[in-house]
Amino acid sequence: MSTVAARSVRNGVDTARLFATLDAVKAQPEAARFRFAVDNRWISGTHNRNEISTFFGAGAGQRHAEVFAVEADHPAVLAGGDAAPTPAELLLAALASCLTSGLGNIAAVRKINLESVRSRVEGDIDPRGVLGLSDEVRNGFSQIRVSFTVRGDASPDQLRGLVEQAVARSAVYDALTGGVPISVDVTVG
Amino acid sequence: MSTVAARSVRNGVDTARLFATLDAVKAQPEAARFRFAVDNRWISGTHNRNEISTFFGAGAGQRHAEVFAVEADHPAVLAGGDAAPTPAELLLAALASCLTSGLGNIAAVRKINLESVRSRVEGDIDPRGVLGLSDEVRNGFSQIRVSFTVRGDASPDQLRGLVEQAVARSAVYDALTGGVPISVDVTVG
Repeated sequence: MSTVAARSVRNGVDTARLFATLDAVKAQPEAARFRFAVDNRWISGTHNRNEISTFFGAGAGQRHAEVFAVEADHPAVLAGGDAAPTPAELLLAALASCLTSGLGNIAAVRKINLESVRSRVEGDIDPRGVLGLSDEVRNGFSQIRVSFTVRGDASPDQLRGLVEQAVARSAVYDALTGGVPISVDVTVG
Repeated sequence: MSTVAARSVRNGVDTARLFATLDAVKAQPEAARFRFAVDNRWISGTHNRNEISTFFGAGAGQRHAEVFAVEADHPAVLAGGDAAPTPAELLLAALASCLTSGLGNIAAVRKINLESVRSRVEGDIDPRGVLGLSDEVRNGFSQIRVSFTVRGDASPDQLRGLVEQAVARSAVYDALTGGVPISVDVTVG
């Protein structure tokens, strides 16, 4: 059994388990729908905290191994307390992580052993939008740049192909480039 | 001095400092451009780690009070190690945090004392896109829902107005609803 287990794990990805997941989703696509959620609580000023504990997926309610906390704050130069990354930086982190998680899976499926994967994600933003000083500049990022450095036991084309496929199937890249309908409701008092 | 300081701080927001920031950006809009960045490192499988330490803004290189780390992983039900939130959940956290940070500033400027601000952000995703099983469903979220509960010393309309203005000026809401151009480059070996 340990031989089988060792054979199916590459780059830390259990490919046998990944293929089983793919088969399960193929067999029951309706049951495969996911709903992710975060619960945010304001702390003080621009400082707040997200808790991430449960989600719906694979036909059932699911619970993470622990309650994950992700805080955010504005930096001192924007009159914040700088107790945590900015929300804009969390967005860039979500993008870097989504591409890298996908790349890990794709490399394992393609039988490429990764040595290292590093990326830097930069985003440009003109704060006049966010600060309410201009209606002509957008609030969000005008441009995001991603730079990957990938090392592994495959040709340069194959390594580049990992990033291409990670981009082609990234949930966060898709959301950021394609836009998502967002509804907002408010309860008061 | 302590009286002045106490008077200018509301909800943990130093409004005098916030107005000074607004004036500085108004005076030198070109110098106010921001560039945020994250550095991501693959750990194993779908598990990876973002470090957030420096950014450019207000005309100079800036350094956060500390190096912030944000990890991500896929959940066990998607054959991941569940060592951290999923990238999709980080995206929802970025949205919740951006709206809540903005709301904190806006309430302070409008002289509304907040008692509590809570929000839940949910996003629906069909994993057949991400898993490469369908070209007909999108990779990203089909829909995101935000629900705020706001308590403070203002009328229900004024409290609802805080959320409306936070949405109107949110960098992450703007990026997610409007889309952002993203470039990707790869270095190998």
